[in-house]
Amino acid sequence: MSENRPAVVLLSGGLDSATVLAIARDRGFRPYALSFDYGQRHRFELQAARNVAAAGGVEQHVVIPLDLRVFGGSALTDDIDVPKDRGEAEMEEGIPVTYVPARNTIFLAVALGWAETLGATDLFIGVNAVDYSGYPDCRPEFIKAFSELANLATQVGVEATGQFEIHSPLIAMTKAEIISTGKSLGVDYGLTHSCYDPDLQGRSCGRCDSCRLRLKGFVEAGTEDPASYQ
Amino acid sequence: MSENRPAVVLLSGGLDSATVLAIARDRGFRPYALSFDYGQRHRFELQAARNVAAAGGVEQHVVIPLDLRVFGGSALTDDIDVPKDRGEAEMEEGIPVTYVPARNTIFLAVALGWAETLGATDLFIGVNAVDYSGYPDCRPEFIKAFSELANLATQVGVEATGQFEIHSPLIAMTKAEIISTGKSLGVDYGLTHSCYDPDLQGRSCGRCDSCRLRLKGFVEAGTEDPASYQ
Repeated sequence: MSENRPAVVLLSGGLDSATVLAIARDRGFRPYALSFDYGQRHRFELQAARNVAAAGGVEQHVVIPLDLRVFGGSALTDDIDVPKDRGEAEMEEGIPVTYVPARNTIFLAVALGWAETLGATDLFIGVNAVDYSGYPDCRPEFIKAFSELANLATQVGVEATGQFEIHSPLIAMTKAEIISTGKSLGVDYGLTHSCYDPDLQGRSCGRCDSCRLRLKGFVEAGTEDPASYQ
Repeated sequence: MSENRPAVVLLSGGLDSATVLAIARDRGFRPYALSFDYGQRHRFELQAARNVAAAGGVEQHVVIPLDLRVFGGSALTDDIDVPKDRGEAEMEEGIPVTYVPARNTIFLAVALGWAETLGATDLFIGVNAVDYSGYPDCRPEFIKAFSELANLATQVGVEATGQFEIHSPLIAMTKAEIISTGKSLGVDYGLTHSCYDPDLQGRSCGRCDSCRLRLKGFVEAGTEDPASYQ
């Protein structure tokens, strides 16, 4: 058990990070949730993050404006079309256009800053190497390298009073396993948002990679997806 | 030589980063300057960054708003008093209260995102392990760990089409050596701002650690500091 220590949890408002928040709490941490307003097209995610944080009993939820659109380079922040109706083989080919440059590095770096201020040495992130094998910053070796960096970058690390741990509890889970875990911990997936291309009412498209992985996960977990689709 | 490759240069508007920009250009890179509006008390730094970028012939200068005040924890963003009139021995004792949690990790992470979008694999940062030995994220081992992380975090790293290099040309220089180098490359130090606690006209206090190190550096370099003091 974590003896009620504080932990910073990266919370996007998606299915994965909502599950991670529940896991952090289940492990006995006091969660501080961190979200980013980075100019994402799917802004319903941020409202979902607020709803998930409120339902998840966090100590504090901070949304940091960090506009990465100035860099361009991704369908999530640009005008490039979000790919639709792709099969699994296609999804697994190389790095998807929905990749945001250095996103997890940036998010973990800011989380580290907050953790240091809180006196926390635990960060939680919902990366997953099974369904998102195309993203370089979702791999175990990236998480390990960031832990090592964190211990060199901080007062705690230098004074050797603690060791940072980057928890990525979903990294080896399938989407179905994530959903089953979350359900067992009481996560309300109706509050979460996964779609890369929702309509104006926030309803999911059901056809982008993220929707397809989510829907398949619910089917395989043998349960209904409570999200609303177009 | 760098064959006119693009490089992202972290530019605070201080003496060190102005020198780094000149070094990057001297090494043949096309510099893209990146500054942060992170709620720093000494906001004259940002205007200095704009002036230095304009004088330094950058390809582009981007100022990213990233408000770290929400985390607190430093005299540079808080209401804690900036220490004044400290001797060198005192300055060297432990981590100063002007330390901003995980600042260089955050800045390098965002620089990495821009670099990836630009197709650049070179980042420049003005960290210095001689005069700022108290900052954990100014040490060579931190820079090395970040390089390793960058190669694991990015498309370039995964596809092994390139290797990121974090250039920290000042890391082993004294302040006097930095100033002499910059002077030889034509840096106008009158455009730079170092003070942690300037007055309303932007004039430097001459008494905070940053001013004292700067003034001592100019004395040792045998040249006049063109900054205006209160």
